[in-house]
This record gives sequence, structure tokens and C-alpha cells, in this order.
Amino acid sequence: MAWIGLDWGTSSLRGARFDEQGAVLEERAFARGILTVPKRGFAAVFDELFGDWMRPAGTRCLISGMAGSQQGWIEAPYCACPASLDELVARLAWIEAGRIAIVPGLSCEHSGAPDVMRGEETQVFGALRLLDIDRGTFVMPGTHSKWIQVANGRIEHFATLMTGEFYALLRRHSILARTLPDDDVALVDAAFDAGVAHALRGPGLLQSAFSVRTLSLFERLPLQERPSYLSGLVIGEELRTRDPSGGEQLIVIGDDALMRRYERAFAQRDVRVRSVGAQATWNGLFSIAKRIGA
Amino acid sequence: MAWIGLDWGTSSLRGARFDEQGAVLEERAFARGILTVPKRGFAAVFDELFGDWMRPAGTRCLISGMAGSQQGWIEAPYCACPASLDELVARLAWIEAGRIAIVPGLSCEHSGAPDVMRGEETQVFGALRLLDIDRGTFVMPGTHSKWIQVANGRIEHFATLMTGEFYALLRRHSILARTLPDDDVALVDAAFDAGVAHALRGPGLLQSAFSVRTLSLFERLPLQERPSYLSGLVIGEELRTRDPSGGEQLIVIGDDALMRRYERAFAQRDVRVRSVGAQATWNGLFSIAKRIGA
Repeated sequence: MAWIGLDWGTSSLRGARFDEQGAVLEERAFARGILTVPKRGFAAVFDELFGDWMRPAGTRCLISGMAGSQQGWIEAPYCACPASLDELVARLAWIEAGRIAIVPGLSCEHSGAPDVMRGEETQVFGALRLLDIDRGTFVMPGTHSKWIQVANGRIEHFATLMTGEFYALLRRHSILARTLPDDDVALVDAAFDAGVAHALRGPGLLQSAFSVRTLSLFERLPLQERPSYLSGLVIGEELRTRDPSGGEQLIVIGDDALMRRYERAFAQRDVRVRSVGAQATWNGLFSIAKRIGA
Repeated sequence: MAWIGLDWGTSSLRGARFDEQGAVLEERAFARGILTVPKRGFAAVFDELFGDWMRPAGTRCLISGMAGSQQGWIEAPYCACPASLDELVARLAWIEAGRIAIVPGLSCEHSGAPDVMRGEETQVFGALRLLDIDRGTFVMPGTHSKWIQVANGRIEHFATLMTGEFYALLRRHSILARTLPDDDVALVDAAFDAGVAHALRGPGLLQSAFSVRTLSLFERLPLQERPSYLSGLVIGEELRTRDPSGGEQLIVIGDDALMRRYERAFAQRDVRVRSVGAQATWNGLFSIAKRIGA
């Protein structure tokens, strides 16, 4: 049966049309994240951008990401961890019965506070399929990085770290911004590595971040290297916070540029990682599609 | 001999006129921090605001704070730690020999990066005089909090933590700001304490900060309590980073509102603190004035 998959996030919307073996026949991408869509406007945007793909009778659509949030098309209540793929399938939020469904996000609890994700769970199940594994620690770098523990094919637990957002805040809005170049500059590996190393020595970002200012003050860090150093500081802090041990199987899912930074950072902890790219989402949606007989 | 003291910081300027025993005869405060003064304009601002106090022949003036930075009146090179009061006196930067001097800031090095302060060293020496002690850990909460180790009357070491600035960034510029009230609201003790407790449980602010969002999402933290909770998170993170042990003598120097928050936070670590207010600066300047025979 024909089916399509959508990754509908906060700021972007990607879609793909698949054959029955999960191979991508065609892809589309739009700057139509959920923040650009009025609350009752999702059906119209969907019809406009993907109506032609849905025309063949019996075509199904699976959607992952923020489209299932309170601000999305319909709210798909969070599924509590631990959660397997079967539980996601059982909790699909159907917009049109048997035709269009949203994959629920996951929630878990740590130290008295909840944590949530939407979309990353689908990528993790896709990565499990791609790598043919059923356990590991999955790292998904980004504005809000996710660290996800999988055992026996189930997502047991996960944590969100606001790494990318802290970088952006410090880069653009803090006192450190005054000593940084206005324009984006290319990554300088040595400066990035020095930032990672400084963060890993501890004792924490509240303190280590100030070194951007003092190293600049004493002219020990050239202007063009400062953003790389700061990036190393926040990513190093993420690794220090999660403290990956050497024994664990670590899989990084993300885009190439960010993945390269994380691989450099992990190398300082003697942790080797496997990496998976954007195809993880499509593979995750395919795993779900197969289970619902699409 | 008559003398006056100035605390000339980034955003404010305070001055006092003293008698020979260090008692304050008169105080003035202006919104004329160094950022408001053009590079060659310091002498004119000084003459305008304090010229009358300097008129009696032989009157001396001591200035602490950012007036001694690269952006200040003249640059008073940092004095390296460990540093005693005598070393500060020996390194005074005289603007007019025997008449107007700037107290140098201090520098130290930790884990391969420098740290600096200007003004806080004078407050610490003032607190030592006020409390009649020669050792302890001094905590100066603020935009950039300082933790300062003193032994045998010397400042041995210190660290800067960007606590207040991280709070402001998260409060106003992060995704968390969307779930916080626009206006400033009164401190809610229980929410502040919960934030401190959550931060102290670890593993770090990159992760714990996200709880502001998730607790809001699940309606487990009322709107008006969220800024207090966030304040507790960042101050709790500061305490976790520095990990004050119960045995140490801890002295907090700062304004009343911030001091109260830190006292509440320290209580969760079973650390009792002594506190000193704004008079610390004047006492520090008096200690220096006595040594130069003012």
C-alpha cells in the first residue's frame, strides 16, 4: 500500500513518498514549521503541499515531530518511557482514521522533573533499524540535545540538554558577545578542542564561560577563534554533564557539521561513536508504517 | 589628612568623604558608570562631581572598580594572586602623584585560563577589617559572582561565575522566556527552594534549565512561581559548582535581596554564612588610605 512520511517540526517541514520497501521515491522540504501555521490551518497546508501524493486511494501518511504538540495539528499525548515501537503504534493519534496519523512524543521523569521529546523517538527507532541493533546510547545534538538510552529495542530513558541554545545565548546576547566577531566564522579545530578540554576539566559552565572574556582580555585567544572556543566549551560541558563511559555504544544522529564537532569532542573522552544522518527519520516512520500494514 | 573614596563601576559611581577614623561624613551616588564616560572625559566628570570635596589642600582620593580597566580613567595593571593589602598599596595607579590613585584589580589562573576582578578585592579587604578576621571564603553574588579564598590576610585565589548573567539570558532571551511572565514578580520562597534543590541534585544547568519548560508544560509550576524557580536553579548551580564544605567560614558580601536568596540556598547545603553589606567597600578603601598615610 502507498504511504508518505512527514517530519513536521517547529521551523521546518519535510516530506517523502516511499515505495513498499521503504525506499524514498521523492522528497520535498518547506519552511512551513508549525510556528508558521495557524491553529486551524494544518489541514489546508497539508492539502496544498502534499495533496497530490495523497490522491491514490488507500495512501497513508505518518507524521512525526512537533505537529503533535499543543501548538500542532492535533495533540498526540506523550507516551511514557520505557516505550517500544509497538507502544508508539498503539498510541498513534489519527487525524483521519486509517489515513493520516501523528506519532506521539515520549515523556520520562528524572530527579523530580519531567522531560519530553517529539520526533527524536522516531529517529531513534529508525537508527535501530538502519544499524540493526537493539541497544545503545543515542545522542542527538542540536538546540536542545537529546541523550536517549535504548535497551532491548525500547527507549528506557532520555535527557534534554539546552546546549545549542546556551551557545546562541552566550554568542549573541551575553557580555561575551562584545569580544566575539559579529559575523559567523569558520570552525577552528584547535580552538574548539581547547574549549572542550577546558569544559571537561570542570567545574561547570557558569565558571568556564568567563574564560572567553579573560582569554580575550589577555590576548590569548584570537578574535576569529573565539566562537570555536565557545562552541567547544558548551559541547564539552554537555559531555561532562552526561559523562559517557568508554564501554557504551554511542550513536550520534544529526547533520554533518554538528556531528563532526561532537566526534571531535568525544575523541577527548576516548569515546568512539557511530553516526547516522537524516535518513533515520524516514526509517523510523517506515518501521511504524510496516506495523500498521501500510 | 582628609581623604575621599570612590567606587567607580561599570554602571554606577558612588563616592564618600571620610574623617580620619574612616567614618563616612557624606555620600554621593550617580548613574555615571564608566560606560557613560568618554575615554578622555574622566577628569572632567571627577572634577564636576567631586571637585568641591578635593578642594581642601592635601585631600587624597582612592578609587576602586572598573575605573582602572582598559575602558576606564587609566589602566591599573592587574596584581597577580596571592595578594595582600600591602601589594595593592604598592601597585596603586596614581593619576596625580600623592593625590588621586586607582586600586588595581587582581588576576589569577585556573585550569589554563586567567580570571580577573576589579573592585571586589577592595570589598574583601574591607570585610576582613569589619569582621576582624584574616581568612575565609568570600562570596559576592551578582551578574558575575566572585568566590574568593583568603588566608593569612592574603587573597589566595578566586573564581568568577556568570550566575546573574545566565539568569538574565534564560529569563529574557531563551525559549524559557515564552513560559515566564513578562513582568518581574515577587520571589516565591518555596519555588526558589525547589529550583535550588533540583540544581543541587545535578547533573548540570544545561539539563536542569529545561525543567522550567517541562514543569510549565505539565502545569506543575504556576506562572508566577517560574522566575523564582529559575533563580533557584542558577544559584543552586553556582553552589553545586563551588561545592562549599560545611567546615569553611563563608562570608557573603552583597545587597540585601540577593543575600537573602543566597542564604536560603546555602541553608540547603547546611552551610551557615555571615554577611556584610555595601560598607565593605568604604572599609577596604580606608585600610588602603591608612597605609598611604591619608
